[in-house]
Amino acid sequence: MNDTARTRTALPVFDDVLAAAARIAPHAHVTPVLRSHSIDAIAGCELHFKAEHLQRAGAFKFRGACNAVWSLSDEDAARGVVTHSSGNHGAALALAARTRGIACHVVVPEGAVAAKLAAIEAYGATLHRCAPTIAAREIRCAQLQAETGAELVHPYTDPRVIAGQGTAALELLSDATPFDALVVPVGGGGLASGTALAVAACSPRTRLHLAEPSGAAETWASMQRGERVTEFTPDTICDGLRGTLGEPNFALLHAHGARVLKVDDADTVAAMRLFWQRTKQIVEPSSAVALAAVLGNRETFDGQRVGIVLSGGNVDPDALPELFARG
Amino acid sequence: MNDTARTRTALPVFDDVLAAAARIAPHAHVTPVLRSHSIDAIAGCELHFKAEHLQRAGAFKFRGACNAVWSLSDEDAARGVVTHSSGNHGAALALAARTRGIACHVVVPEGAVAAKLAAIEAYGATLHRCAPTIAAREIRCAQLQAETGAELVHPYTDPRVIAGQGTAALELLSDATPFDALVVPVGGGGLASGTALAVAACSPRTRLHLAEPSGAAETWASMQRGERVTEFTPDTICDGLRGTLGEPNFALLHAHGARVLKVDDADTVAAMRLFWQRTKQIVEPSSAVALAAVLGNRETFDGQRVGIVLSGGNVDPDALPELFARG
Repeated sequence: MNDTARTRTALPVFDDVLAAAARIAPHAHVTPVLRSHSIDAIAGCELHFKAEHLQRAGAFKFRGACNAVWSLSDEDAARGVVTHSSGNHGAALALAARTRGIACHVVVPEGAVAAKLAAIEAYGATLHRCAPTIAAREIRCAQLQAETGAELVHPYTDPRVIAGQGTAALELLSDATPFDALVVPVGGGGLASGTALAVAACSPRTRLHLAEPSGAAETWASMQRGERVTEFTPDTICDGLRGTLGEPNFALLHAHGARVLKVDDADTVAAMRLFWQRTKQIVEPSSAVALAAVLGNRETFDGQRVGIVLSGGNVDPDALPELFARG
Repeated sequence: MNDTARTRTALPVFDDVLAAAARIAPHAHVTPVLRSHSIDAIAGCELHFKAEHLQRAGAFKFRGACNAVWSLSDEDAARGVVTHSSGNHGAALALAARTRGIACHVVVPEGAVAAKLAAIEAYGATLHRCAPTIAAREIRCAQLQAETGAELVHPYTDPRVIAGQGTAALELLSDATPFDALVVPVGGGGLASGTALAVAACSPRTRLHLAEPSGAAETWASMQRGERVTEFTPDTICDGLRGTLGEPNFALLHAHGARVLKVDDADTVAAMRLFWQRTKQIVEPSSAVALAAVLGNRETFDGQRVGIVLSGGNVDPDALPELFARG
């Protein structure tokens, strides 16, 4: 097994997070940590928001994508990268590829939101449309890999991606005073498992909580059962959290003993509205779910110092009526 | 005429802006200056956004209100302050009064937006409802002054308010490289005339442009005629810019030779949407009008270094779908 193959299959470790931090430093923003005294008063605890909605391409996803792209040898990089995602990962990988001047292919399902596809194209990626099924997009990805030799960068199971996502928590935890708790959203588990690596190494007494929509709570079910649950039909407005928890992601999260807090969409919308009003910052539902988890579990966080990773801010203004109707 | 009476009637000068900056420093935020390379590329110039939507109470209005409140003698302050405004000035004065621990009375018209009134009350002010006419609110204000001895702080003609609003531009202009142009919204003219004082003293070669909604363009008409126009019926989504340009405001702006750029509401909404998407910041239409003025007058600003004061971010999330439908 050569180094690249090992990288693609082994579980990442904390050293990979440190290496990712150094690798992405020339390209990614060190995002600010925001405070709101009025939200603290409502929550009954001290909240520190890691503002990944201000990350390049509008989400933490750029960290993992950038780490994957800059982990490639020059030879591999020359053949480009490929992924399937019509959301934040597609845009993030497109921008990451541009930082290295290499090709990026993004497989997108028919019917994906036009504005999101336009964003991916604006970063210079080539779109490849396929039928809106998992089988169709995996076949199309495999075809593109065969045709171009491009490297597949999976949105959340790729160890380079997991390590990259862990750098957000690494920055947050570098604050002077230790956190009692960290709360991050969980979907496929890239951010969550990368955060677990950072917490375990930098601040083992900090409790890691995962915020998950009630309508896509297979991570909660997986942690309850102690094995990965993959059978579920997501029903949530948190479009970034509809994916199925990945295998390496489950392995890392289960080993870490992360707790899952389920959140109803209505509470997520209420938290998003509150955050918008008090901070004038646009975060997407998949981020607001973490604040909602804190607001809905006061006894768990009462008086604590809590870090929240605001994962992204890519909300389509035209989607607002539908979003607020759910709140 | 005692000092207080003089303060209330004379035109403010640049020294008043400097004094205001010192006076409000313990209470107001020095807001950041935001950049967006992607918006620069679209605008064809270099834009520096003074982020007053991140000011306390969500708008630059806190500066003027705070300066007025902290200009009072202890004796006068003990009797409180009063104003009529259901918008940003009402909330700003309420918060400013709270920083000094004094009473604040806000006269609001029947039918004002409940969320805005709740915000004013949350800052500790007492609401006084009146019929939705100018006469009714002036009578109610006069009654309250007579009953309580409270000091009237007009939203934009009060010289202490004008001087306070000028501190936003003072901070922006303290950047190293001089600006070719500054663009600020104009409604009653508090921010605009305060900015004129700062520009004239700190950076006289910087051109001051005022962005005004086409549907409430009495400042444009006033500058064309060389005398203050007060007869007009505002029709604009920019709720902060519907007021009539004040007398001292006109005097200062006319003397300065500020240029007015008229902006259609549809362009304001498009600019708000662009700013939302690229920066994840919520600014209100009355702020986005200034960006829209730049985008709509490319030849005027081509290649220039331009400062924009983003006046505020108090948008009711529930009003957003309707707003965006106007764009």
